[in-house]
Amino acid sequence: MEQVNQIILSKAGSNVDLIPEIAKHLISSGGKRLRPMLTLACADMFGYRGDGHVTLAASVEFMHTATLLHDDVVDESDMRRGKLAARKVWGNQASVLVGDYLLGQAFKMMVDVGSLEALRILSEASAIIAEGEVLQLGAAKNITTTEADYLRVIEAKTAALFAAAAEVGPVIAGEGAEMKAAARSYGMELGLAFQLVDDALDYGGSSADLGKDIGDDFREGKITLPIVFAVARGSDEDRVFWRRCLESDGIEDGDLEHAIELLRKYDAISDTVQRAKDYGDGALKALDKLPQGAHADALAEAVAFCISRVS
Amino acid sequence: MEQVNQIILSKAGSNVDLIPEIAKHLISSGGKRLRPMLTLACADMFGYRGDGHVTLAASVEFMHTATLLHDDVVDESDMRRGKLAARKVWGNQASVLVGDYLLGQAFKMMVDVGSLEALRILSEASAIIAEGEVLQLGAAKNITTTEADYLRVIEAKTAALFAAAAEVGPVIAGEGAEMKAAARSYGMELGLAFQLVDDALDYGGSSADLGKDIGDDFREGKITLPIVFAVARGSDEDRVFWRRCLESDGIEDGDLEHAIELLRKYDAISDTVQRAKDYGDGALKALDKLPQGAHADALAEAVAFCISRVS
Repeated sequence: MEQVNQIILSKAGSNVDLIPEIAKHLISSGGKRLRPMLTLACADMFGYRGDGHVTLAASVEFMHTATLLHDDVVDESDMRRGKLAARKVWGNQASVLVGDYLLGQAFKMMVDVGSLEALRILSEASAIIAEGEVLQLGAAKNITTTEADYLRVIEAKTAALFAAAAEVGPVIAGEGAEMKAAARSYGMELGLAFQLVDDALDYGGSSADLGKDIGDDFREGKITLPIVFAVARGSDEDRVFWRRCLESDGIEDGDLEHAIELLRKYDAISDTVQRAKDYGDGALKALDKLPQGAHADALAEAVAFCISRVS
Repeated sequence: MEQVNQIILSKAGSNVDLIPEIAKHLISSGGKRLRPMLTLACADMFGYRGDGHVTLAASVEFMHTATLLHDDVVDESDMRRGKLAARKVWGNQASVLVGDYLLGQAFKMMVDVGSLEALRILSEASAIIAEGEVLQLGAAKNITTTEADYLRVIEAKTAALFAAAAEVGPVIAGEGAEMKAAARSYGMELGLAFQLVDDALDYGGSSADLGKDIGDDFREGKITLPIVFAVARGSDEDRVFWRRCLESDGIEDGDLEHAIELLRKYDAISDTVQRAKDYGDGALKALDKLPQGAHADALAEAVAFCISRVS
């Protein structure tokens, strides 16, 4: 992981000062580096001897960072990981362009590794992530979104990169179709679990005491799984409330509290957490097919860590 | 070219409706398709037999289209090629994300072609373009920008893609270093000429009668070569004027007319056109080293077309 961090910092460099400044703001702000860890573990578990996995891991983190920069612009977010979002410090323009730069660097790094198959998997993920974001843009402010609709969004915008990050491990280790499919499946299920936990946390998760970082999705009119459950299970009166809050920017004081009350009443948060656990179990099942040992243990821990954030 | 258009339209497709809608808005709005033409001609001139050049040409146009979508967001432009800019129809959010999608598709298509060298050249260009845009962001609203500063910007933001589009032709045709360097040099010089002609046209070019599509750069505070010349050659009083207009958003009625008057007085537009012609000549010289015939003739015509827009 230390090597990954070094590559990340060196490849975020540029003669254009603003680029490393913004990139480092994000990169050093304590992301969990979960995605690059998947790439490293999924290559190392096959005894991969080389440094291609380190470069691929760094390029995965760059893809993720580029997505964050663009997401903040798209969502008009003010904060990211407890710090001011880059767009609030340097502006939307710089955030869009530095995101583009990091994406370009990510592809250059993948080319350096020289595996066309890894390139195919990661470039495919790149297109799918953007597709998922566009899909979410369409689903935003629409309370008729179904669970299937929503899963399609998060499979694309979040889980596809986890899946790709894991799959390129066996790819550069020269493994066959079965190991690649198992790694991909592990990543996909973990990614879904991860996103659902995030969604639950945005409404305070299982905790009764609400921290200060909650309600962002609600304020942005994002329809996440807790909302899908609560809308489907609620009364007509509830739906009037949800429509006012989420479809028409009409959020008033006390609405978030009422929303959380409704989410609790219909078990919408706890059922979302349950879904996350189910996907976590799915990830562990996929992991059973992969070589056992210290790396598999680390990947199992990643699942436990992900779920533990909410319970 | 017909094949390129077909690939472009099919690969701009997506199950997410908004994506083809926006992509087609731009793609069908009559861009000149100059960049993909370079790729085709620079492969065909070596007797390349395959269809990789068509796919690469389409991916070059996707990279360009993605850049346009993001540029309009960054420049807050209202119009693009005489139509409403995509961001004015579908919003900044969709423009950012559909740009990302097209970039991802571009890389997927390059991977399909399977040439790591072409991938390296185009991914390098992708990072450099973004770097050039960030550089321009820093140079905007700064009238002390020099000619060298400005050339660095346009070499990155415009000419790098022309150079890459041309270079990948001999690359997939299996040519050696000399032909690749000549094609790259042709593309680079043409790209510089192209951008300088654009810059001159934004102030009406050589024509005395000013059309309606002028002054965009001026209103956006963009420091282009005509401005660099006029600032360097002008009086202290002129610099006060340029500073007020370009550095502090203080444009008033009649300022554009006065700006054009100053640009003419100091031969700033005609000298920019002269520079463009010089780069055009450079492109023709590079072309002399490439195989002569119908394809070289078409590439020479591209230079003449580019210059003819302004004179």
